[in-house]
Order: sequence, then structure tokens, then C-alpha cells
Amino acid sequence: MHFDFDTLRVSEGESVSLSNHPTLIKPIYSSREEYREMLATQVEQLRKLQNIHYADNRFALLLIFQAMDAAGKDSIIRHVMTGVNPQGCQVFSFKHPSLEELEHDFLWRSNRCLPERGHIGIFNRSYYEEVLIVRVHPEILLAQGIPDAVITGGEVWDHRYRSIVDMENHLYRNGTRVVKFFLHLSKAEQRKRFLDRIDKPEKNWKLSMADIEERKYWKQYMKAYEACLSATSTKHAPWYIVPADDKANARLIVSRLILETLTSLDLSYPLSSEPRQKELLDIRKQLMDEGAR
Amino acid sequence: MHFDFDTLRVSEGESVSLSNHPTLIKPIYSSREEYREMLATQVEQLRKLQNIHYADNRFALLLIFQAMDAAGKDSIIRHVMTGVNPQGCQVFSFKHPSLEELEHDFLWRSNRCLPERGHIGIFNRSYYEEVLIVRVHPEILLAQGIPDAVITGGEVWDHRYRSIVDMENHLYRNGTRVVKFFLHLSKAEQRKRFLDRIDKPEKNWKLSMADIEERKYWKQYMKAYEACLSATSTKHAPWYIVPADDKANARLIVSRLILETLTSLDLSYPLSSEPRQKELLDIRKQLMDEGAR
Repeated sequence: MHFDFDTLRVSEGESVSLSNHPTLIKPIYSSREEYREMLATQVEQLRKLQNIHYADNRFALLLIFQAMDAAGKDSIIRHVMTGVNPQGCQVFSFKHPSLEELEHDFLWRSNRCLPERGHIGIFNRSYYEEVLIVRVHPEILLAQGIPDAVITGGEVWDHRYRSIVDMENHLYRNGTRVVKFFLHLSKAEQRKRFLDRIDKPEKNWKLSMADIEERKYWKQYMKAYEACLSATSTKHAPWYIVPADDKANARLIVSRLILETLTSLDLSYPLSSEPRQKELLDIRKQLMDEGAR
Repeated sequence: MHFDFDTLRVSEGESVSLSNHPTLIKPIYSSREEYREMLATQVEQLRKLQNIHYADNRFALLLIFQAMDAAGKDSIIRHVMTGVNPQGCQVFSFKHPSLEELEHDFLWRSNRCLPERGHIGIFNRSYYEEVLIVRVHPEILLAQGIPDAVITGGEVWDHRYRSIVDMENHLYRNGTRVVKFFLHLSKAEQRKRFLDRIDKPEKNWKLSMADIEERKYWKQYMKAYEACLSATSTKHAPWYIVPADDKANARLIVSRLILETLTSLDLSYPLSSEPRQKELLDIRKQLMDEGAR
């Protein structure tokens, strides 16, 4: 297990070329059995850390998952986060914005879903769609009712990257740690997984014609992802490019990166201050007196 | 394991007297080991059922937990729901309403947190506080800015019960199943748990002077609960009075009642209709052709 997880991190200012990033690497587990053990251990560590995170109540953690269809977002969330107390963890899946949401700026709807202090928030897709699907299909942008000057100015994407980076820096300054995962899938592996969704009746519901339509824009999506990852990976809110052709390996990697982030926060159960200690002793006395009556 | 769970259910129209309901019963497990096995089995059943519930996407499930402090709401949620995919499960803890929330009717703020179809929503405390703490401390009602006539009319509680029952019936008609748990704790057991929170430093943060103040209103709370359970337990949105002095037993009971509710929904993975089958075959052909190129 000498895998260097930092190699997956996009440095601030780095120009990302996805063809230089593998979608499949030598797995960090050596057998199916070892995978299961590692995942179970990490899930248990995460469960414990999250309890302290919840009690500590100083930081929030926001995990963002972006990827092409069938890259495994849902299954990673299920495998890595099942085991965490749902009381301190909320998952939001962002689909087509509603008309009401479109009446606001592009960050508005996710802002309402940001995690509270002590919580873990998970965005299954996110405001990043606004520089991904919207960039691949500019007609969506045209339908967003934003001022003409924004569009004709030619800097709409740079402006959106800037808005995102500024917001994430703001969150950092206020105690929210943002970690972003791009699940990097090959086009061939997506095809395999789509066929699997057709061939297994209980998976049929996961596939739609729209998924197949988007697949035709693969190259454009990769370009949009490259521009996005290059522009928005920062020291305080980094992107990780996670090889996703091997689902098991991707789960272990994501789980490990979440653990590292929580560990770095130096969390602890809140200690009682002196006046608080006194209050507790007062309460204790009241309760004991009650028993004596 | 011949425990009849229906005995915990409050029938519609029943007049509840809490002194007739035990806070401690013969446990449904025979040893600590059996408890752990039973809980693990039930958690696993719940995990599976919830996956189907999510795919089925016709119903929502709303679980409401109400109780005196230290009755075990948080720990039941943690033990019973940890294991469920957080993607389909959201927990909301209702604390003091904000000024904005107080500018609306008393159901407004929880309405925004109702679970989507396919999801499980958990309310840790709920709109029921509006007929519990608010009934015990009428000064809270006076500060809510509602019309004077509502208060002087003398029927404010009956009106609130009616609003709640009407809303829950509305939810039922639209596919949301509401199940409500009152964790029934004895005053002596609460004292024991409070002392434990003082004596264990890592539990200190869970206790406040306010908790001790509320304890002084125990009798008034029991009366408010009796009136509430009697007025708002209905066929479609029942209350269960769960003996809560034994935490392990309470967890098994709650878990079992949730399982029964989900099982009764007759959930299934959505079957593909004929046109949908055709669409899938079209997609299959497209993907196969692509491979042949």
C-alpha cells in the first residue's frame, strides 16, 4: 500500500490534460477479500471520525462528485458513506434546475444545500455542471435568461470559474472544507456499464436515452472538464482525478482521501470550560438532591 | 420473540394515559449478543429495503421522533439508520425556530424538509413541539405573533391537532407514509442518564442547564404528550409508544416497526414498460454498432 494519493491531486494553476491521467491503475488492494477488509476498516474509521466532527462542531465538510454517467458516483457514495450516521450527513443530487432556481444566479440553488457546521454534505453533481454540461451545450446558457452582455462578452466561463473559486475560498475562511472528486472513466468502460444496465432488468431504471445522447459529446465533455479542473483546483479546495474504471479501487481512494481530510482538521470532543465545569457540577448537585428527597 | 408490536400502537380515538404504558418491558432479546445479532440483521434488511424504496420511487417515508431529553432519539437514529445509504435518507433536527420561521404558520418550516419520493426523512423533534413545549410554556405561544383571537378562543391546541392531522392525511393521500415514535422514558432513568453525561467528559457537550429546567415540568410534559398522542394518532399516521428505559430494546423495536412499514408498501424495482423495453433495445443496438466500428 505505498500508493501516493497526492499524485491524484490537481495543483493550483496546473493545466490538466486528461489523456495524461489514467482511468485504470494498479489497484491498491491485492485481492477481492483484501478490498472488502480495507473498505470495511476505512468505513469504520470514517464513522468514528464523523462522530467527533459532529461533536466538535467547528468545521463542515463538503464533498463534490462530478463525472460522466455510470462512472460510479452513486455507488461510491453508497459504499463509502453507508456506515456514517445520517444525522450528520446529507446528500444532494442536483438535476435539471427548476424554473424558480433559474430565476437566480447559478450558485444560488446549491448555496441553500451547503452543510451545517459539524456535518458532511455530499453533492452528487453540483454547481460545476454550470461549466460542464452548460459549456458543452451553450443553448442551455442562452435559456438561462442572464444579461446579453455576459454572453457576448466572451468571458462567461472565466467569470463562472472565478465566482466558484471565490465562493469556495469564502467557505474555507468560514470553516467549510471542500474536496472535489472527478471520477475519471474511459469511454469503453462507460459502454460496458451501459450494456450492463440494459441486460440486468433491475438496473434498467438507471439508464435513459439522454445518457446515450450525452455520450456523443464525450470529447467536448473532456475538454470542459480539463478547463474546469485547471481553473478551479485550489490549495484550499482541491480537485482529485480518481481513476474510475475499477469501481472497487475508486471507492478505496475516495474513502482514503475523505479520511485524510477529516484527520487533518484535528477534531476533538469539545472540552468544558471552567464556568461550564461549574455549571455541570451545579446540575449534578441538583440531581443528587432530588434523589435524596 | 413473540412480542406483539401492535400493543405499542395508539389506536385512532384512543385516550392515552401514559401511566398505563410501561417505560421498561421484558426485552425482546435474551442476551447482549443476541441483541447485536438482531440489530445487525434488521439494519441489513433495512438497507436492502431502502434501496428498493429508492428505485421504486412511489412512496416517501417520514419518521418522527419525539421524547423527553436523553430518551435516546439521537442514539436510536444512529444505531438504526447507520447502514442506510445516506443518498436516500435525510435527518432534520428541529431546534428553536428562527425569526424568519416564526413569521410563518407553525407547520411551514417542517414542510420544507419533507422527504422526496423514494427517500426516508427523519425528524428529530418536529412540528409536534408546537403542541408539546409550546403547550407546557404558553409564553412561547404568546411570542409567536399569531392573531389574538386564536389565543383567546381557547381552542388553539385543538386547532393545532386538527392542522397536523389534516396535513398528515394529505401526505398519506400523496404517497408519504408517516410513522411517529414517542420514546417513553421514566423520570428516574433520565436522571441516571443526565448524571452519566456529567460524569463522562466526552458526553458533557450533550447536557445544558436548559435540560434540567425542562425536567422540572415533567408532569406537564406527560399531560401534553397524552393529549397529543390521543388527538393525533390516526390509522394512516400512527403513534407508537416505545418503552425507552432499555436503549437496546427500544432500538430493536423502532427498527422492526420501520421494517414493517416499508414491507407493507410492496415495493419493487420499476419494471420496464413495452415502449421502454424497445428504447432499451435501441440503445443496445447503438452501443453494439459503436463497438463494431
